[in-house]
Amino acid sequence: MSLPKRVKIVEVGPRDGLQNESQIISTETKIALVKKLAESGLGYIETGSFVNPKWIPQMADSEQVFSGIERLPDITYAALTPNLKGFQRAMDVKASEVAIFAAASEAFSQKNINCSIAESLQRFEPLIAAANEQKVAVRGYVSCVLGCPYEGDIAPSKVADVTEQLLAMGCYEVSLGDTIGVGTPAAVERLLDEVLTNTPTDKLAMHMHDTYGQAVANIYAALMRGISVVDASVAGLGGCPYAKGASGNVATEDVVYLLNGLGIEHKVNLGKLIEAGKFISSALGRNNASKVAHALSQQ
Amino acid sequence: MSLPKRVKIVEVGPRDGLQNESQIISTETKIALVKKLAESGLGYIETGSFVNPKWIPQMADSEQVFSGIERLPDITYAALTPNLKGFQRAMDVKASEVAIFAAASEAFSQKNINCSIAESLQRFEPLIAAANEQKVAVRGYVSCVLGCPYEGDIAPSKVADVTEQLLAMGCYEVSLGDTIGVGTPAAVERLLDEVLTNTPTDKLAMHMHDTYGQAVANIYAALMRGISVVDASVAGLGGCPYAKGASGNVATEDVVYLLNGLGIEHKVNLGKLIEAGKFISSALGRNNASKVAHALSQQ
Repeated sequence: MSLPKRVKIVEVGPRDGLQNESQIISTETKIALVKKLAESGLGYIETGSFVNPKWIPQMADSEQVFSGIERLPDITYAALTPNLKGFQRAMDVKASEVAIFAAASEAFSQKNINCSIAESLQRFEPLIAAANEQKVAVRGYVSCVLGCPYEGDIAPSKVADVTEQLLAMGCYEVSLGDTIGVGTPAAVERLLDEVLTNTPTDKLAMHMHDTYGQAVANIYAALMRGISVVDASVAGLGGCPYAKGASGNVATEDVVYLLNGLGIEHKVNLGKLIEAGKFISSALGRNNASKVAHALSQQ
Repeated sequence: MSLPKRVKIVEVGPRDGLQNESQIISTETKIALVKKLAESGLGYIETGSFVNPKWIPQMADSEQVFSGIERLPDITYAALTPNLKGFQRAMDVKASEVAIFAAASEAFSQKNINCSIAESLQRFEPLIAAANEQKVAVRGYVSCVLGCPYEGDIAPSKVADVTEQLLAMGCYEVSLGDTIGVGTPAAVERLLDEVLTNTPTDKLAMHMHDTYGQAVANIYAALMRGISVVDASVAGLGGCPYAKGASGNVATEDVVYLLNGLGIEHKVNLGKLIEAGKFISSALGRNNASKVAHALSQQ
């Protein structure tokens, strides 16, 4: 039970967040959002994804977003890539690194990407080979780690298994996603008890959704286990369109507030981050889902 | 670090919650709310308060509420009472027990009730003497335990001091209130490190506000220290009108979800509780602040 000295925040708002908002916003607004996030001190920004725009029209302009952003030094501008073609598109516009994704639930894998977990991992092999050749880092996501909308409970051993496979394939880090936000701290502990048996803490990130109001508590539980990478989405953008009742990602502002209270370093300027969240909430005509943003804006 | 086997939930929605809503609802609606809460399995319901209606018009009909409710067996219907007169009014309508209140912040005490902390405790002496004589249990509240809107940080030793005085005066339990919701789990731990030095866990309750989205995490931190009484407000009703940016109490539904996940007994039927929260949110024309209520209602 010891908290990490510093935490890396992986900002997923421009990709995971905006991808799951029903409204499509302009390329210019996305570019402006990425700039504001970078200026807030965030070191890692998932900026877009190179998936089929037929399935995810919200990300159809990721080429233009990557081409349009001003790059600040030492910031990772990452792209989600489903296959070799997506990887090549990401490289063409100079994404800093890429992310791939698998599920810990067979039913979710089938419904979400129409293949088994094993098949989904196989399909990433050419992408990872190309990334290795070009010395591009690959991050892995595992979804449904604390529950699946179709299968219900997911065995921690299943998550550990997929995590180990992604790392063995060449991912430098795996982000454990509570896609439908059903977890509580006890479930996080059971999960990490299992996953940490074969995987060191510095290979893992937590990606919590706040559907049931438990995300901050779940992140706290993970931090106490030594996890030092946390995914979050400014203003709580996003959710999961495939999952019943799944509201958004945990708000980055609320994670930063937690880290400040715990005395954990993170380099993010909360005031600037809140401004970025207000900007995108206003552009979407959407309620800002960060409680911290509301509280500090009323003062 | 061990979780309690069972937790007592103190439902404060009909008093602390409704008192801090700008809209005043009918006596009939309040009576119906208390009935629904009792039927959900909650064993303790703070039902009203006997303060001057000039200051808190939302509670002007507490006599009628207490007179109108149907009493289920084994349920505590409590009243907040500021003085002997309020205590006598509460007894006239057969309140099961009463609660008194003090602050851990001198500035908050002055601004809220226009006297020092020491004076506020003195003023409760005749009330406690009368309660002892009539064998009526008295619960104590301490506000601003993790921060004050006027003073900022509050020394844990100050909270421990007021807590010990309330217990010494005859309170059977003291509820530690993060009135402005600024705390994080680290602050909760620092607070409990100090308070638990002289006070056993079974004399303490946590009363957390979710202003900065930290309430569930803070409650989790307190549970891990063995605290087994948690105050909560159905649908997250209420807040604090004297505190800048203070949004509502933690939602009882979200606390019940946490306890379920942690395997802690509590006797509350979550479905019935959610119905009670929907009922009062609709009566107030207010957004339901429970994430769990939203998530489970979309299914």
